[in-house]
Amino acid sequence: MTPNTLTTDLVKKYSDIRQHSEKICAPLEIEDYVVQPIVDVSPPKWHLGHTTWFFETFILQPNFPGYKVFDDQYNFVFNSYYETIGARVIRTDRGNLSRPSVSDIYKYRKYVDEQMKDFLQSEFMTEKIEPLLELGLNHEQQHQELLLTDIKYILGHNPLFPVYKKEDIVQKKHSGNTEMVRFSEGVYEIGFNGEGFCFDNELGRHKVYLNDFEIASQQVTNREYLEFMEAGGYEDFRYWHAEGWDWVKQNNAKSPLYWHFIDGKWMNYTLNGLQEADLDDAVCHINFYEASAFASWKGMRLPTEAEWEVASDNFDWGNRWEWTNSAYLPYPDFKKEPGAVGEYNGKFMVNQMVLRGASEATPPGHSRNTYRNFFQTGLKWQFTGIRLAK
Amino acid sequence: MTPNTLTTDLVKKYSDIRQHSEKICAPLEIEDYVVQPIVDVSPPKWHLGHTTWFFETFILQPNFPGYKVFDDQYNFVFNSYYETIGARVIRTDRGNLSRPSVSDIYKYRKYVDEQMKDFLQSEFMTEKIEPLLELGLNHEQQHQELLLTDIKYILGHNPLFPVYKKEDIVQKKHSGNTEMVRFSEGVYEIGFNGEGFCFDNELGRHKVYLNDFEIASQQVTNREYLEFMEAGGYEDFRYWHAEGWDWVKQNNAKSPLYWHFIDGKWMNYTLNGLQEADLDDAVCHINFYEASAFASWKGMRLPTEAEWEVASDNFDWGNRWEWTNSAYLPYPDFKKEPGAVGEYNGKFMVNQMVLRGASEATPPGHSRNTYRNFFQTGLKWQFTGIRLAK
Amino acid sequence: MTPNTLTTDLVKKYSDIRQHSEKICAPLEIEDYVVQPIVDVSPPKWHLGHTTWFFETFILQPNFPGYKVFDDQYNFVFNSYYETIGARVIRTDRGNLSRPSVSDIYKYRKYVDEQMKDFLQSEFMTEKIEPLLELGLNHEQQHQELLLTDIKYILGHNPLFPVYKKEDIVQKKHSGNTEMVRFSEGVYEIGFNGEGFCFDNELGRHKVYLNDFEIASQQVTNREYLEFMEAGGYEDFRYWHAEGWDWVKQNNAKSPLYWHFIDGKWMNYTLNGLQEADLDDAVCHINFYEASAFASWKGMRLPTEAEWEVASDNFDWGNRWEWTNSAYLPYPDFKKEPGAVGEYNGKFMVNQMVLRGASEATPPGHSRNTYRNFFQTGLKWQFTGIRLAK
Amino acid sequence: MTPNTLTTDLVKKYSDIRQHSEKICAPLEIEDYVVQPIVDVSPPKWHLGHTTWFFETFILQPNFPGYKVFDDQYNFVFNSYYETIGARVIRTDRGNLSRPSVSDIYKYRKYVDEQMKDFLQSEFMTEKIEPLLELGLNHEQQHQELLLTDIKYILGHNPLFPVYKKEDIVQKKHSGNTEMVRFSEGVYEIGFNGEGFCFDNELGRHKVYLNDFEIASQQVTNREYLEFMEAGGYEDFRYWHAEGWDWVKQNNAKSPLYWHFIDGKWMNYTLNGLQEADLDDAVCHINFYEASAFASWKGMRLPTEAEWEVASDNFDWGNRWEWTNSAYLPYPDFKKEPGAVGEYNGKFMVNQMVLRGASEATPPGHSRNTYRNFFQTGLKWQFTGIRLAK
Repeated sequence: MTPNTLTTDLVKKYSDIRQHSEKICAPLEIEDYVVQPIVDVSPPKWHLGHTTWFFETFILQPNFPGYKVFDDQYNFVFNSYYETIGARVIRTDRGNLSRPSVSDIYKYRKYVDEQMKDFLQSEFMTEKIEPLLELGLNHEQQHQELLLTDIKYILGHNPLFPVYKKEDIVQKKHSGNTEMVRFSEGVYEIGFNGEGFCFDNELGRHKVYLNDFEIASQQVTNREYLEFMEAGGYEDFRYWHAEGWDWVKQNNAKSPLYWHFIDGKWMNYTLNGLQEADLDDAVCHINFYEASAFASWKGMRLPTEAEWEVASDNFDWGNRWEWTNSAYLPYPDFKKEPGAVGEYNGKFMVNQMVLRGASEATPPGHSRNTYRNFFQTGLKWQFTGIRLAK
Repeated sequence: MTPNTLTTDLVKKYSDIRQHSEKICAPLEIEDYVVQPIVDVSPPKWHLGHTTWFFETFILQPNFPGYKVFDDQYNFVFNSYYETIGARVIRTDRGNLSRPSVSDIYKYRKYVDEQMKDFLQSEFMTEKIEPLLELGLNHEQQHQELLLTDIKYILGHNPLFPVYKKEDIVQKKHSGNTEMVRFSEGVYEIGFNGEGFCFDNELGRHKVYLNDFEIASQQVTNREYLEFMEAGGYEDFRYWHAEGWDWVKQNNAKSPLYWHFIDGKWMNYTLNGLQEADLDDAVCHINFYEASAFASWKGMRLPTEAEWEVASDNFDWGNRWEWTNSAYLPYPDFKKEPGAVGEYNGKFMVNQMVLRGASEATPPGHSRNTYRNFFQTGLKWQFTGIRLAK
Repeated sequence: MTPNTLTTDLVKKYSDIRQHSEKICAPLEIEDYVVQPIVDVSPPKWHLGHTTWFFETFILQPNFPGYKVFDDQYNFVFNSYYETIGARVIRTDRGNLSRPSVSDIYKYRKYVDEQMKDFLQSEFMTEKIEPLLELGLNHEQQHQELLLTDIKYILGHNPLFPVYKKEDIVQKKHSGNTEMVRFSEGVYEIGFNGEGFCFDNELGRHKVYLNDFEIASQQVTNREYLEFMEAGGYEDFRYWHAEGWDWVKQNNAKSPLYWHFIDGKWMNYTLNGLQEADLDDAVCHINFYEASAFASWKGMRLPTEAEWEVASDNFDWGNRWEWTNSAYLPYPDFKKEPGAVGEYNGKFMVNQMVLRGASEATPPGHSRNTYRNFFQTGLKWQFTGIRLAK
Repeated sequence: MTPNTLTTDLVKKYSDIRQHSEKICAPLEIEDYVVQPIVDVSPPKWHLGHTTWFFETFILQPNFPGYKVFDDQYNFVFNSYYETIGARVIRTDRGNLSRPSVSDIYKYRKYVDEQMKDFLQSEFMTEKIEPLLELGLNHEQQHQELLLTDIKYILGHNPLFPVYKKEDIVQKKHSGNTEMVRFSEGVYEIGFNGEGFCFDNELGRHKVYLNDFEIASQQVTNREYLEFMEAGGYEDFRYWHAEGWDWVKQNNAKSPLYWHFIDGKWMNYTLNGLQEADLDDAVCHINFYEASAFASWKGMRLPTEAEWEVASDNFDWGNRWEWTNSAYLPYPDFKKEPGAVGEYNGKFMVNQMVLRGASEATPPGHSRNTYRNFFQTGLKWQFTGIRLAK
């Protein structure tokens, strides 16, 4: 591959990924871009601005001589959590900002995209910058998943239950029976060691010792989860962590997120609107406490992330993020990068659990079996599901 | 005046007032209609829908045979606090609703306005309905003031400090010295007894006994308030109610709302944007605790609402709502109306203080010297000021 | 009366009042002196220390040459809210302090009492100091009432429902029918103007204009209040202030404080232990919202404090503090005293309602018909009741 | 060993451990037994009652025919978190209960101890019951450590800084230099496999794969921690987890718990009273965030619990609980016991970190190198310290 081809490829990759974010937002009304119903859900316009700010701040400003920032105050508005880069709008305030307007943010994107294309084809785009560019693109892809989860939350919590899109989203369904796949005790290896991009938290392929274990060939379905609900799973403390039980009582929890019991039927809000719950579909939008309680009710457990990774070639995955029973902690050789980029992953390595796999909201080309996703144990708005182990 | 003229007048009055609300919103971006930065501030689109819902629910539905509601679910979205009329979106959630869209709400207004015009010219518009129509129009005017205070809050708390409108808003300024006007002890009368509309809380003109008192001919200026600030008024508990002092410490209060100390100058966000504080202007956006502490520092006090009303022909008012030291309580003959309309005023008669006068945000034709405005003691976002008494 | 008699009288009065506080505490276990189950309830040992600190700080230290403070650190522990006198333990922390021990506090009382007796008989006890001594004694009496309300709360919220004392507390009961006593419109006078002690908030006897009114000859009974409960009074928002209705829902309120529905009967915790509710007794431990809602359900209202005072010679009172519909605000001639003593009343004159009368917990000699008691609208732990007006 | 000797030994062991709890409380005033300054700290009288309730509920009631419970209502008061056993006083309320009195609780202990001694020497004391007895005794020992940490908190947060005991508590001090002990990559075994008692969370000895690592021969001293403080460790977000940094800012954290900067010196509250901080002593009372930030500032990290256990024969431990970077999760073969006893450990296995070792507050005979202690990441009141690894 000649340098020119490489450049052309980079520009195309950059454009494709950037356009995908805007495609996700195409069905929205302007008003949908603005609101932040809970602290975890960011306004779509904030995602569009923040991902753009990443390229401006970490690539164009330090590396493209003569680059003029689009607006001095956007750093304040679109910085997410990079303490290194100065003051930022606190997360709970994002939904209070009507300006910059959606149209200003699209102008911002256009401006930065043009500059980025010039930059990528310039002499200043050196090999040294490539990892940062890759990080920026993967960062944008992470926000594409968040855009979908946040849009679903915004529309799904509106009393009018607006439809996001009319076309059916094809769901992977169960085929036949779930089987338990067995693995024998021994030393295995996990962690990234391939070519291409990965996040810093996947690096440092290393050995782990696993006991004998079995893992399910398929994810838990809505039908199975409904059995748990109907068997009184939410009323029996024995299945729950103490923290989980407190969560159940404080939130009067009774079902996955987006489920509504209406006129004797369980309805489920989806991106296609409110529909009768599809019992053959994999259960979705449950938190760690619920996943764990379900497993306990079944007399099973959740797999560890090492078990999951070792076994992952033996089953289909990608439909739901799967809660593991592993806390999000550094791999033995984990190193924080210096500077703001080093804030990316390490500082979250406490009081969160690892999720493995990917989901129907994960953008194409952004999944691999070493990927370590992580969320706090009480959160339900991601496309999360359950795979059992024992 | 013939019935026809009356009808024409009513239709014109209705149209004028309804259009005024939309004129207030004309300078906004769509995004500005949506946000609710604090619980007291409602999204502009909610005000536009709620005032419309009032006419639909209380006039058209019960009185206009064959009227079809615009959308069944709007009652849930646009009911404010009328418990009689069923479930409502809790106040803290209004800013989380991206739908109905702004354009849908303007359609809703257009639909209801057309129906109202038909209704007003129909046989169903009887004299019995007039008081309710008057209430609906005065209700809309109250929301016009709230629209301006809420828009100011939304834009004034955006880090970009957007300008609401370019044209100068003319302020009434101090002319010459403030004098103390004296009144003698005796029996006076207060309360509404004229022709035309008033709210139920003004009714029941009645006698009160007042001691000798003096009241200032002009409102307190920014200059005077700045003296209080610079004399350490916010650091000396002796001027404050115990509750007020807690409020000062919890909020680290130091100045009126919208004041920012930048590069050695006090700047003030106004609807014309961020500007140097005009020291000759009447102080604005202070709460009851601050008004009361200022008066205490001056060795004076706030007037009671009876004193204010009795004296009101002797000074200019209308520029700022003036905090009184009267709690918002029923007049001796106060009667709650039956039904939802009876929820209008009486149920708020606890733990609020009366404000008298009007402000630069009050719509034309909506002020009188018997008007009893009321707010909780810690709130600052209304156009509130101070008049001293002793 | 010769000066010597005066001195002897003063010493006796001082001793009697001081001993009464300790008599109230006599039935307690040491543990009962320590706890603070809610922020409004102070530990009994704190009351004993705080009232003593008042005499030490305001009388002995400034006026008795050579007086040595008992312990330097007690100012920090026993200051209640006097900002003038320096740092204080914040109110929510009082129940976390195991030291000074109860026995240390009794030593503190003994020490200060001996010094006070010496002082009262010394040349330094001048006429100028008498008002402060009176204030200190009345302050102690106020805390005697609080001691009983707080002890009742501490024991009444213990799952073992301990008995405070075995002897029957004699209740004034209803005798015959309640009648409405009528008063005619006109100018009346209220406020203190007698000999002897009163608080600063009662001073400034002044004229008020009252409309015709009627006021009940007796307080509302438990029987009547139970009718309100059984008629769904707690489930119908129409009787409640908006704030009151929020309070009902947040607290799932259903009855007066200390009522428990056990095995089909309403039981009532009293200082004699848990007993079946006495339906002929005056209702007790209801807050302003409840008093007001009850009156509204009856088609009546609460009296104003002026009405109550004007009418008070026409009915029995003293069994319950009676909620009025008057906000706690300064009388026309109210003046704050200079210094810490000036913090006594004025700074609470916002967002509280006036109660008139006295209660079974009020110490002898501490009631008069000009007394202005005041509490926040949501509080129930005082011995509060209802008298209707219209 | 004959059965008789065994019985005598059991009775002696039971008595010794039970007496040790009372010995810990001997220096207390009655008032010190009652308070609960924060939710994590239980009143000493509660610990004394709760440990007794354990023997009554799990051993005497089900196994000793004819046993009469001491008081029916104590189950409600002294149940800690066993949902299986019915309602319990919520944890934040423990400090509001003045009854049962301290003397009643000592009576309760005496009664249960006598019954237990009878039981242990009776035919009903079978081998099957021994594990439960062991659990009860180890449970009591855990509460002995909590008694000391809670007493320290209660006295150390009293403005009078009372001394718990006069005799010097001998501290293990640093001897010479700290060295890094090296271990080579490979498969190791961890978990309990000896004779005698262990908790369920230690069971299931199993293999783990460890990379090369080094671990410090001594704990971090106050001197070293002070260097971190003086180097601005609490002001530089780069050393902290995101959650930890939020904790620092919300709590304005600046030092270990019990440190006070007075007159230019760092003073440290100890069980001997307030003393100048001993710089050679091991740092104590820091939370996980602080331990982790300190390690990060040193360019090192905390050990995992497996590393700690594998290395533990190579260094002195027992002076401080040492924070590891391992989340508290089940070992591969972890099994929850059926019934209430099964609630002991498993339900806490989320969002807590493992501490290894023991502390100066750990009772004799209650430590081993497989012991898995665990606390939430923000807590500081245990005797916690730091050992570095890399």
